Amino acid sequence: MALKSFIEVHPDSHFPIQNLPYGVFRPGPGSTPRPGVAIGDYVIDLSEIASAGLFDGPILKNFSDCFHQPNLNKFLALGKPAWKEARSTLQKLLSSTEPTLRDNAILREKALVPLIPFATAQNKIELLLPIAIGDYTDFFSSMHHAKNCGTIFRGPENPIPQNWFHLPIAYHGRASSVVISGTDIIRPRGQGHPSKNSPPYFGPSLKLDYELEMAAVVGPGNELGRPVDVNEAADHIFGLVLMNDWSARDIQAWEYVPLGPFLGKSFGTTISPWIVTLEALEPFSCDAPVQDPNPLPYLAEKKSQNYDISLEAHIKPAGAKDSSVVTRSNFKHLYWTLTQQLAHHTINGCNLRPGDLLGTGTISGPEPESYGCLLELTWNGQKPLSLNGTGRKFLEDGDEVIITGYCKGNGYNVGFGTCSGKIVPPLP
Amino acid sequence: MALKSFIEVHPDSHFPIQNLPYGVFRPGPGSTPRPGVAIGDYVIDLSEIASAGLFDGPILKNFSDCFHQPNLNKFLALGKPAWKEARSTLQKLLSSTEPTLRDNAILREKALVPLIPFATAQNKIELLLPIAIGDYTDFFSSMHHAKNCGTIFRGPENPIPQNWFHLPIAYHGRASSVVISGTDIIRPRGQGHPSKNSPPYFGPSLKLDYELEMAAVVGPGNELGRPVDVNEAADHIFGLVLMNDWSARDIQAWEYVPLGPFLGKSFGTTISPWIVTLEALEPFSCDAPVQDPNPLPYLAEKKSQNYDISLEAHIKPAGAKDSSVVTRSNFKHLYWTLTQQLAHHTINGCNLRPGDLLGTGTISGPEPESYGCLLELTWNGQKPLSLNGTGRKFLEDGDEVIITGYCKGNGYNVGFGTCSGKIVPPLP
Repeated sequence: MALKSFIEVHPDSHFPIQNLPYGVFRPGPGSTPRPGVAIGDYVIDLSEIASAGLFDGPILKNFSDCFHQPNLNKFLALGKPAWKEARSTLQKLLSSTEPTLRDNAILREKALVPLIPFATAQNKIELLLPIAIGDYTDFFSSMHHAKNCGTIFRGPENPIPQNWFHLPIAYHGRASSVVISGTDIIRPRGQGHPSKNSPPYFGPSLKLDYELEMAAVVGPGNELGRPVDVNEAADHIFGLVLMNDWSARDIQAWEYVPLGPFLGKSFGTTISPWIVTLEALEPFSCDAPVQDPNPLPYLAEKKSQNYDISLEAHIKPAGAKDSSVVTRSNFKHLYWTLTQQLAHHTINGCNLRPGDLLGTGTISGPEPESYGCLLELTWNGQKPLSLNGTGRKFLEDGDEVIITGYCKGNGYNVGFGTCSGKIVPPLP
Repeated sequence: MALKSFIEVHPDSHFPIQNLPYGVFRPGPGSTPRPGVAIGDYVIDLSEIASAGLFDGPILKNFSDCFHQPNLNKFLALGKPAWKEARSTLQKLLSSTEPTLRDNAILREKALVPLIPFATAQNKIELLLPIAIGDYTDFFSSMHHAKNCGTIFRGPENPIPQNWFHLPIAYHGRASSVVISGTDIIRPRGQGHPSKNSPPYFGPSLKLDYELEMAAVVGPGNELGRPVDVNEAADHIFGLVLMNDWSARDIQAWEYVPLGPFLGKSFGTTISPWIVTLEALEPFSCDAPVQDPNPLPYLAEKKSQNYDISLEAHIKPAGAKDSSVVTRSNFKHLYWTLTQQLAHHTINGCNLRPGDLLGTGTISGPEPESYGCLLELTWNGQKPLSLNGTGRKFLEDGDEVIITGYCKGNGYNVGFGTCSGKIVPPLP
């Protein structure tokens, strides 16, 4: 029989008892940020559950202060046995057959916070960045994305660099400008260079783009000089979020030789508020693509798996009533797996820390409608999209981009909610 | 008359009363990390000065808890007026004519910690990373370095990319692996690709290199979306450290297309423990090179200045009695100034935070002996160096690289001490 909660959860909800994603929230203005878990239209306040002594398993009974923190980093540092214990405690506590929380009105009042904000500002729940991000890395793991970008920028002969099939290419991103879903994105200014012999110009970006990505949140991490084995790498990943790696294509194209993307990316990166754990995603695992050539031994996995996560990107222009779907993709299209990414990241001895963020890179699939950014969808502005009759080459001020993702279970979804951001003009 | 301290300072010392660089230290094993200022062979424990109520100026009397912290970030966040006040308070307190500290034996005993470690482990002072680094960025601001690297990797025709003269090129670095001087550097493993048609190999790097750099430590920072004006950028820089941006040239050459350096750099970056303030460096400012073409208006400075800082890199092979000087360079060779770097970094709205680190890139000058890394000095291994009779193409296990730097004043130096690290083999 399917697991069921005493909290009513709509069948279309992303947050049934099978999911239980982690976030950080303020129940109202001025209150202290604290960890929470989403279920249906509620957040379980984990600081209240901890204060009530209900994290009473062998690990967390001694470490429940990790739920009295303004971010999840301490909990992440505890590692997989603690994560399993927390999930099992919460699934039991929330199940329809367990009276502890169900029949305790006072505790329910304290611990269950409605996720849908009330109309009044006084009662507004605020979702915050769930982690303090020490370092943010962005990979480039979709072959279709690599091929399309290479064709657009360097032509159809050998669009994918030779190294791409041997290692999961990545660059260090900017941690300070990672923001939570719902934060406005200010159009960046910078240099562009439209043609070979003209001088560069300066101004607001003319080629502002979204990138549909997901990102892994790192758990315990590793010491400097001690790589993580690819077959143990899954124990170092707590879960996944949706990510929009906003990109200014004109700035990026001019600056990126020879040291890679910098200001074309660092003005903002949006993540969704809820971290869906690998444990909740496990029923949706699937085989990763066969890799040819065979990866070097340090990247060769006993079992190479992806997840079947349906992903969509929508654009909602200013004043429009509805958004238009522009991308329909799936996490399973990634060529390099999360575990290969993490093992590669540490093979030189580089240390990962709890809360580090590893972006997958834009997740494009083989079909044109699965391309994960406007650069690919409009072929660098040559083929404008139609959004309910309005043309789009790149993002305009007022455009809101909404990314969603979910796994389809039997009678329920394990979903990520949304990752959204609206473009606003530069400050004067 | 020259400013003089009651603490005797050798004329060759890097740390006279004119300098007063900031660091963080533990007076002995197990004690709490705390901020300090170096003078001669001593560290002034700023937590003791604060506890004694001696930071009594208008700003710091209310904020002296910034000296009861395990890093300098809170002090950095206070900004330039607080930094000026602290320097003026400390210069007065340490001057030969001021009795407050000079004649108070009990306070002197508490606040003056010998910098030269005692022989016994129990009394050993430990210097720590002075800042919690949110983000580390590395620029590429020496024209000579850009030209040499471009010639080696891409040939003598157009060795410097067209964009280089229009903007200070940079990449995001890895913050987690920035370590304090004296930390061993573990030789990274990774993929190399010696020739076009062979498959990549895997193993310990065969082309391990140092890079002589300096780095700016960011002060108050800026909000997302609010760029810092180039003419106000100096107020956002607290001071400078020496930096060694260790580089594995074989890993870097294979991985860096198209997204830039990643594992070729992220195994370790060493900084010196003492941050020399811009205020202490001001007497050594000099004109920056004339820039042609003129930079775009957002990079055009009313006054474009560098600093006259003599820099050296030494290599001391395992078992050798002495080190050999391999680089003699100078900070003044940089084409792009620190303030242009910082203004460019924020022009897209990217937010900087207190404690962020901005590396200059390798500081090479025009003469061959001023080249700041082995890649340039040995022309990618083609012309080995001689270290007291021992040949060197790249770094070998046991090699210690020591970077030093100082400004020559009239009868005193304002110096940076040393930034050192020894190469050790990968862990089994």
